[in-house]
Amino acid sequence: MPRIIYVLNASSRKDTGITENLSVSLEPLRFNGGPEIKCLTLDDGPKGISTKRDSDRAAVAVADFIAASHREPTAGAFVVACFSDPGVQAAREFSIKPVFGIGQAGFSVALNHGDRLGLVAVSAGSHTRNRQLLRAYGLEDRLAGLASLDLDYGELQKPARVSDRLATVARGLVRDDGADVLLFAAAGLERYRAALQDVAGVPVIDPTQAAVGIALTATAFAGQGAQA
Amino acid sequence: MPRIIYVLNASSRKDTGITENLSVSLEPLRFNGGPEIKCLTLDDGPKGISTKRDSDRAAVAVADFIAASHREPTAGAFVVACFSDPGVQAAREFSIKPVFGIGQAGFSVALNHGDRLGLVAVSAGSHTRNRQLLRAYGLEDRLAGLASLDLDYGELQKPARVSDRLATVARGLVRDDGADVLLFAAAGLERYRAALQDVAGVPVIDPTQAAVGIALTATAFAGQGAQA
Amino acid sequence: MPRIIYVLNASSRKDTGITENLSVSLEPLRFNGGPEIKCLTLDDGPKGISTKRDSDRAAVAVADFIAASHREPTAGAFVVACFSDPGVQAAREFSIKPVFGIGQAGFSVALNHGDRLGLVAVSAGSHTRNRQLLRAYGLEDRLAGLASLDLDYGELQKPARVSDRLATVARGLVRDDGADVLLFAAAGLERYRAALQDVAGVPVIDPTQAAVGIALTATAFAGQGAQA
Amino acid sequence: MPRIIYVLNASSRKDTGITENLSVSLEPLRFNGGPEIKCLTLDDGPKGISTKRDSDRAAVAVADFIAASHREPTAGAFVVACFSDPGVQAAREFSIKPVFGIGQAGFSVALNHGDRLGLVAVSAGSHTRNRQLLRAYGLEDRLAGLASLDLDYGELQKPARVSDRLATVARGLVRDDGADVLLFAAAGLERYRAALQDVAGVPVIDPTQAAVGIALTATAFAGQGAQA
Amino acid sequence: MPRIIYVLNASSRKDTGITENLSVSLEPLRFNGGPEIKCLTLDDGPKGISTKRDSDRAAVAVADFIAASHREPTAGAFVVACFSDPGVQAAREFSIKPVFGIGQAGFSVALNHGDRLGLVAVSAGSHTRNRQLLRAYGLEDRLAGLASLDLDYGELQKPARVSDRLATVARGLVRDDGADVLLFAAAGLERYRAALQDVAGVPVIDPTQAAVGIALTATAFAGQGAQA
Amino acid sequence: MPRIIYVLNASSRKDTGITENLSVSLEPLRFNGGPEIKCLTLDDGPKGISTKRDSDRAAVAVADFIAASHREPTAGAFVVACFSDPGVQAAREFSIKPVFGIGQAGFSVALNHGDRLGLVAVSAGSHTRNRQLLRAYGLEDRLAGLASLDLDYGELQKPARVSDRLATVARGLVRDDGADVLLFAAAGLERYRAALQDVAGVPVIDPTQAAVGIALTATAFAGQGAQA
Repeated sequence: MPRIIYVLNASSRKDTGITENLSVSLEPLRFNGGPEIKCLTLDDGPKGISTKRDSDRAAVAVADFIAASHREPTAGAFVVACFSDPGVQAAREFSIKPVFGIGQAGFSVALNHGDRLGLVAVSAGSHTRNRQLLRAYGLEDRLAGLASLDLDYGELQKPARVSDRLATVARGLVRDDGADVLLFAAAGLERYRAALQDVAGVPVIDPTQAAVGIALTATAFAGQGAQA
Repeated sequence: MPRIIYVLNASSRKDTGITENLSVSLEPLRFNGGPEIKCLTLDDGPKGISTKRDSDRAAVAVADFIAASHREPTAGAFVVACFSDPGVQAAREFSIKPVFGIGQAGFSVALNHGDRLGLVAVSAGSHTRNRQLLRAYGLEDRLAGLASLDLDYGELQKPARVSDRLATVARGLVRDDGADVLLFAAAGLERYRAALQDVAGVPVIDPTQAAVGIALTATAFAGQGAQA
Repeated sequence: MPRIIYVLNASSRKDTGITENLSVSLEPLRFNGGPEIKCLTLDDGPKGISTKRDSDRAAVAVADFIAASHREPTAGAFVVACFSDPGVQAAREFSIKPVFGIGQAGFSVALNHGDRLGLVAVSAGSHTRNRQLLRAYGLEDRLAGLASLDLDYGELQKPARVSDRLATVARGLVRDDGADVLLFAAAGLERYRAALQDVAGVPVIDPTQAAVGIALTATAFAGQGAQA
Repeated sequence: MPRIIYVLNASSRKDTGITENLSVSLEPLRFNGGPEIKCLTLDDGPKGISTKRDSDRAAVAVADFIAASHREPTAGAFVVACFSDPGVQAAREFSIKPVFGIGQAGFSVALNHGDRLGLVAVSAGSHTRNRQLLRAYGLEDRLAGLASLDLDYGELQKPARVSDRLATVARGLVRDDGADVLLFAAAGLERYRAALQDVAGVPVIDPTQAAVGIALTATAFAGQGAQA
Repeated sequence: MPRIIYVLNASSRKDTGITENLSVSLEPLRFNGGPEIKCLTLDDGPKGISTKRDSDRAAVAVADFIAASHREPTAGAFVVACFSDPGVQAAREFSIKPVFGIGQAGFSVALNHGDRLGLVAVSAGSHTRNRQLLRAYGLEDRLAGLASLDLDYGELQKPARVSDRLATVARGLVRDDGADVLLFAAAGLERYRAALQDVAGVPVIDPTQAAVGIALTATAFAGQGAQA
Repeated sequence: MPRIIYVLNASSRKDTGITENLSVSLEPLRFNGGPEIKCLTLDDGPKGISTKRDSDRAAVAVADFIAASHREPTAGAFVVACFSDPGVQAAREFSIKPVFGIGQAGFSVALNHGDRLGLVAVSAGSHTRNRQLLRAYGLEDRLAGLASLDLDYGELQKPARVSDRLATVARGLVRDDGADVLLFAAAGLERYRAALQDVAGVPVIDPTQAAVGIALTATAFAGQGAQA
């Protein structure tokens, strides 16, 4: 029976602690008897993913990893923890285990919590890419609005500054744009989710948690084929 | 911390065993330390749900139940186990706990497994309702095809007959219509899922399992607000 | 030959005069030799319809009434005078006479008068429901904007106050949002229609009048089958 | 108070009897005390309308007529009785009275009777134009199927031949394509509507009747401004 | 081998110099050995094209010209240099040579340069027509925003005034509406294109240049049939 | 002034002659005084592009090439000659010269020749990718049908076999699916275009020729900025 959900951080910089933070944020989905959730940094991914070119490089690294791993009996599912879903379609073509992207999973789960989506990105530079992603999944009509933190690297390290800024953009999306659910358009903001939800007054969805939840379900039922 | 996911069978006939079968089919999502998954038959629902009028009656029963339960501290989330999602929008307006419908959740999760959806219904009489449901969620363009078992009540009790018929309609959806993922457009077919997946060669999604997976994730992270 | 168009107020409170006002507002469609237009309050509807839960309850009452009446030889058509179209799809499945909802009919007729729709609701709380309704009919792209009166009950009884407020929101929809036709997203505002049209400079459509016009046409031609 | 609905046959051939037949088919909408329904052949229209070039010529004739007439106090509304809606958008820009096209009105009313549209055209050569028309109104997704009589001129004069052929294409649209409402994609088939409806088992909408019904409603309420 | 691309100015006023300016602006597409680009004013077009009625009249003139010319061996392609694409669909039905409209070609080429379209019109009165045009081509979702010069005739003759105003509306479309490509929604602004592009910081597309480029390509390959 | 249009074959196998054939097929767009059209094989691309994984690898190679070249003063535009448009969005984010993909350009130009698109692919395995590509550009509704040659490698080398097969699939798309324009969903079929057009009776568009035509236009006008 498959036992491992691989959560892939396609950005290869290891000193950022992103993968470790991701892993901590997924703790509530680790159950006795449930699948193992294994967060990995892909060595051959780009240093960071802030452009489409980075994302295309990440796609190659993601597909390489999944190609090498999907036939392992213990592999249950793969989650690509980059919001632009690099390598997801590629891997779906060959992988015998399900592959989920946090972009698509995030959109999907958010729209099970609300009707009009407010997207909270780290930087405004991703707005066009995020619109293209929504359009690729046929969901662009559901977008209430896009907002971004637009903090510099130093500020992004200060939780109080990030919290403040998140509260401001969330209020704008809810009050001015009519969003009734918010979605982080990035991995790495999990720790702010619960508090922001209290401030915003609408559900706030973290896309990695959403994707791992879908992967968990897929893995839980994967073993049934042999029994049925 | 919320502990219970309520799975509501809105059809009040108790001699069919549907609720019990649902509960068995969700066993793989019951984990030590995870939320309780409690399947209930709603006493004041209609006898069966085969028309939109039945579904509207079920909507009232569903909202009544959730209205009476959503403030219980142990309530984590509600799953409405009827494919037309009766009462889901109504309950979302007032419930402080998340409410999921197996129709919307099924579509959402299926489209994380494939690109073009083949919908497997029990009876052809639901085709128009199912198209309307897809349109209501903005997903009608993703429909590859609709098919139905169209078996009489006696035949539906014979697993071999159902399996045969499922295999036939699944092949048609995949080969002729180009579906690359199948979705049961009903609760109650869970037991056939894994075997059909082997036959069809594409993922087969059960909508109740999909919805409970999303509910499980929402419940797992619901307690985080206090800690953050 | 069918002779009666039933206009159903699904809200059971009788002291509001809504049904009587509806009936008066439909006087211009009562012709010698034309169908009778009969406005009724449904006894078993909810007290008022301001939530989706109310609407679902109304759906049951509406379908019950139509189920009991549609085979009467004198019944020509049914108009459900609640903007969320409760019970309309349900009744269409079984009724041998046509069933119209003022939501769908209002959208349809308004878009025969203009290209971009400005929706005037009583309360902002209905905006999400109205968007969902438009999406269910595939018309969400035609929405220029949503506005609402947001008056308290006392103010809603003062025609001058309502007129003022209508003029303000209408100007906003036309000037700022580019609406070239306005639609009341509720029954009960008929009396303000003509004056508002003069103020707004674009057509203003009352949805009940629109629906009864379609019902009148359907009834007028219903008797032709026997003759042809 | 406006008293006349002008129904414009934009094809100038007078020996075909089309305008006279149209007028007869609208008899059920002529009421004591109701608006006059006046069917006219436009002298400067093209001889027939079977191409887009014909339709563009008709547009000029239609707009010329409405420009000359819309300020007459007795003019209530204009109906352009050509399915491609020539001149309708043009006239809407300047006319102070409402202008309706039988294409748009037919689509709109048909979708108040059913969910999936079967379009019955005279000739297959109009299919692309009809798809473009549906797309122009944002309704292409609602098309279940297109069919055409494809009879030569002589056969079109034989009612029994036309009835037979209509029955055949209607059955195809309903059974094979899943249409639950049919719409004639032309003026001039009114006389076959009621009988075809009995054969097809779903509502059959004549677009001129649909448009005149909307015009009747608009005219009925047009006088209200002065009274309000 | 076809040698001539006809660029048709459907507005018959000859004192405006529009056709001459068009011709100058297309100079960069005139190559040794390439097709001749011949700009013509249609004598029987309307005096100007500022309403849909004008556009319908232009459609007749356009189709008449193409009908008279398309079988000439030297005719390579036709470009209709009016943004509402009058006569284009009509001519496509009969012409044996390709026919392009600057509206459709402009949208198409602009979306090969950017993702979200900012439309720069001469007058706000065209906004509804331009939205309808986008919808007719299925591209309305790609519209970031509409803006217009709204200068009077005298001001439109002053290049500095036009440049200033273009810069202002371009900045608004890019900064506030998120457009990443701009398109002139009219013929006659070619001379401002390159400078505006520098100011706006995003590509600016002239629709006539776009259409003639497509026509040039079609003409270049038209002779290949005989050789293959 | 920019002088070179780079046409990039992202598949690195050099013995296939694809790049040379591409270059020959673009001869009609090489004019005296016009831009140079330079076809290159990217050394670091994948061996072939038949999966999404190959396409993602190609995206990296494409962006690397454009990153190294776009600032060269002689570079006018880049055309990515792979139908899945690898690297196009990535390069558009940074390139100061326009970047075109043959997929998007092919769709765009084809829809300026016809209304309903018939897509002719080399292998059925690309159908899902091609649908996703159309959806990403918002054009999925315009698809009349997909067909594929499905010939083995040996057969693909025999022009008579390819011609026969093309004629068969083209007829199916036109007659059965109602396509009124055909588009090759691949580079490398240019030589069959003109003959197939004669057989099919509708325009047949080669996507590389379409894209290079758009690039030629962009390059022709690129020098104007300095002059204006």
